[in-house]
Amino acid sequence: MRMYDIIAKKKYGGELTKEEIDTFITGYTKGEIPDYQASALCMAICLKGMTDRETWLLTDAMMHSGDTVDLSVFGNLSVDKHSTGGVGDKVSPVVGPVVASLGCKMAKMSGRGLGHTGGTVDKLESIPGYRTEMNREEFFRCVDRNGMAILGQSGDLAPADKKLYALRDVTATVDCIPLIASSIMSKKLAAGAHNLVLDVKTGSGAFMKTVEDSIALAHAMVRIGRSAGRNVQALVTNMDVPLGTNVGNALEIEEAVRVVRGERKGDLYEVCMAICERLVSMSLEIPVEKARRMSEESIASGQAFESMKKWVAGQGGDVSVLEHPEKLRPQKEGRAVRATGDGYVCAMDTEAIGRAACVLGAGRMKKEDRIDLSAGLEVLKKTGDTVRTGDCLTVLYGSSEKDLDEAEWIYRSALRIGPKAVDRPTLIYASVSD
Amino acid sequence: MRMYDIIAKKKYGGELTKEEIDTFITGYTKGEIPDYQASALCMAICLKGMTDRETWLLTDAMMHSGDTVDLSVFGNLSVDKHSTGGVGDKVSPVVGPVVASLGCKMAKMSGRGLGHTGGTVDKLESIPGYRTEMNREEFFRCVDRNGMAILGQSGDLAPADKKLYALRDVTATVDCIPLIASSIMSKKLAAGAHNLVLDVKTGSGAFMKTVEDSIALAHAMVRIGRSAGRNVQALVTNMDVPLGTNVGNALEIEEAVRVVRGERKGDLYEVCMAICERLVSMSLEIPVEKARRMSEESIASGQAFESMKKWVAGQGGDVSVLEHPEKLRPQKEGRAVRATGDGYVCAMDTEAIGRAACVLGAGRMKKEDRIDLSAGLEVLKKTGDTVRTGDCLTVLYGSSEKDLDEAEWIYRSALRIGPKAVDRPTLIYASVSD
Repeated sequence: MRMYDIIAKKKYGGELTKEEIDTFITGYTKGEIPDYQASALCMAICLKGMTDRETWLLTDAMMHSGDTVDLSVFGNLSVDKHSTGGVGDKVSPVVGPVVASLGCKMAKMSGRGLGHTGGTVDKLESIPGYRTEMNREEFFRCVDRNGMAILGQSGDLAPADKKLYALRDVTATVDCIPLIASSIMSKKLAAGAHNLVLDVKTGSGAFMKTVEDSIALAHAMVRIGRSAGRNVQALVTNMDVPLGTNVGNALEIEEAVRVVRGERKGDLYEVCMAICERLVSMSLEIPVEKARRMSEESIASGQAFESMKKWVAGQGGDVSVLEHPEKLRPQKEGRAVRATGDGYVCAMDTEAIGRAACVLGAGRMKKEDRIDLSAGLEVLKKTGDTVRTGDCLTVLYGSSEKDLDEAEWIYRSALRIGPKAVDRPTLIYASVSD
Repeated sequence: MRMYDIIAKKKYGGELTKEEIDTFITGYTKGEIPDYQASALCMAICLKGMTDRETWLLTDAMMHSGDTVDLSVFGNLSVDKHSTGGVGDKVSPVVGPVVASLGCKMAKMSGRGLGHTGGTVDKLESIPGYRTEMNREEFFRCVDRNGMAILGQSGDLAPADKKLYALRDVTATVDCIPLIASSIMSKKLAAGAHNLVLDVKTGSGAFMKTVEDSIALAHAMVRIGRSAGRNVQALVTNMDVPLGTNVGNALEIEEAVRVVRGERKGDLYEVCMAICERLVSMSLEIPVEKARRMSEESIASGQAFESMKKWVAGQGGDVSVLEHPEKLRPQKEGRAVRATGDGYVCAMDTEAIGRAACVLGAGRMKKEDRIDLSAGLEVLKKTGDTVRTGDCLTVLYGSSEKDLDEAEWIYRSALRIGPKAVDRPTLIYASVSD
């Protein structure tokens, strides 16, 4: 079987067989199939599509290209969540403690990545002492004892996806639902959880810009999960505005702690509850309404916060910052950016808000860049809010006047303030389970 | 301007600008754009197409990636022909002498190439002494004095096409009309002739398998020619059967000589006349009917044969083989392959007949392979012919019994002999001039 024939078949819209997909992934991972053939195939896939069966076979081949984590010791209780990424997304450190307090086991590996802020693991490092690396035994012991652990990604999960994604990234072949779905799912399936909720972000601050595409991606991923024999559900949620108020690393952990302590509600709380109710319902096999009530009570009663402390302590973190979340806030005063007229926030370019945070030092553009964990911003007026002259739109935290000037300019340009009131945007567009 | 954006634009079906196409071709030729981006773009072009304007811009960029030949010294008289390649195609050494005898100037550079037989230049080397290399001054002097010269391709014509073709060849992106058209035309335009007739072969022995695709390719190339300010016409001709009878190198030259001497008519003669009448009409600016009469008379009167001798002598070739074309035939007797039943030839797998010739030693599979100039075969029964038991179907010339056995097996499998008479196939499907 020659790679040439595989490319030609897909070019003419044929359905690739298991053998053909395995030949591609195995050969490409080993370096036997050159980049120029792989990129030609990816482009043909982008333009001719893949059936559900092909998408699953591709996922399966990539999942098995490296290590897989066996969480069968936790039976049906193992849970995981995944977000396609957005600005202000600090859902994992909220969902984890809630579901752990209800008996779920979340053995989560998370990335660092590039973008407007660090990944979950970078954010967690703003808790003094928090260890993002442990060996397998420690990891399993933490999950068993505390119901959860969140580590940096270790081992060699789905190396085929890693290599292929790097190629797609420079050949304009990222934007393709079967390829995105198999890329995400190969890693999530390799990470081993039996129950998985996917949060597909959609809008100006997300990778997927339209609700329609996001729903299609959600369906594709849920179907892959079914083929793999896992329980997978997906939400399609709004990323036309940042999630919550804080964007940064330590700032986001502060906000997450406040939600777990029951001090804050709002959009972040709602998205977290929607994910919790699904994970708890799937893993405990109880009705979703009951799982919802239990999740809300876990926060209200302080159970979730107790779980959070056990988790953080289990990974060596300083629990005092959970007791006093103000310690996670920047030491110096931020720059308040104020409204210069009256009106309503009609729209936000959420990607630009992410860029402002990155300019302040919260994120990386290149792998080598250092993150300033204390840098970031607070989003104080969101789409649908009324604005009066002098109101504080945002507070920016950065280390130089130059960065603050640039971030202020980006932030102001990202906000559209108009004379007419607009509705608050929908938070959860769709829930996908098949 | 980034290659990434160029790929993305084509992926979404956009029309590339001159600047974008130039960026791609210049960067790729210099090695600044990697193969994996070029192959992704080629696949996007295959699946999203190119407008006439893009196809012309791509051709123009590739034509100017290397040397171009300036034939302006010959004014409107410079002519060239190009065939997309087929089995038994020995048109150039017939057309050249005819049009040269009528005042046209054919300064032709021809390839060696891979395939069932050598290229035109390999075939011409079966004439003892024929020089396929000369410097520019000699070349122009020959054309000026003798009306024609055919050399091996020298210089660096359209290096961008050469590099891109090699990549397309291994990424299943050859089969795409705008890419084929620009590949052929970039080289033909760089070769400089003002008047050009393209012979697009179609059928089982050709690269293009359907008449519809061949006509589309012909139109695409003629339109490129118009954009370049050249006179270009195209024929779409049959390659479901070999052209003429002889397949090989010396054997093909023998047949060409016999046609020029007026000793043979048939399909080869007809295709040659169709090309001659167009070239003569375009370059002398006379009606095509008149050009046809002149071409036929040139052969009938012996003018064309005189021209052939002057041409070959001008390139150092031994003219005695033209006077005695039997000298070009293999020295040893061939193997006659005879019919084992009665019937009619219903169809021929012409590509397989080419493969049989290659097995006998007439062609190359790899660039390094040596050609046996005397090897080849004669096609004695063609589609539409009646066959009786014992009739000779073909005579095979090779150097080993093993090769002869294999070629015989391939040849027999390539012939479909049935009980019902079939019509002789159409020779010229279409003539395209816009």
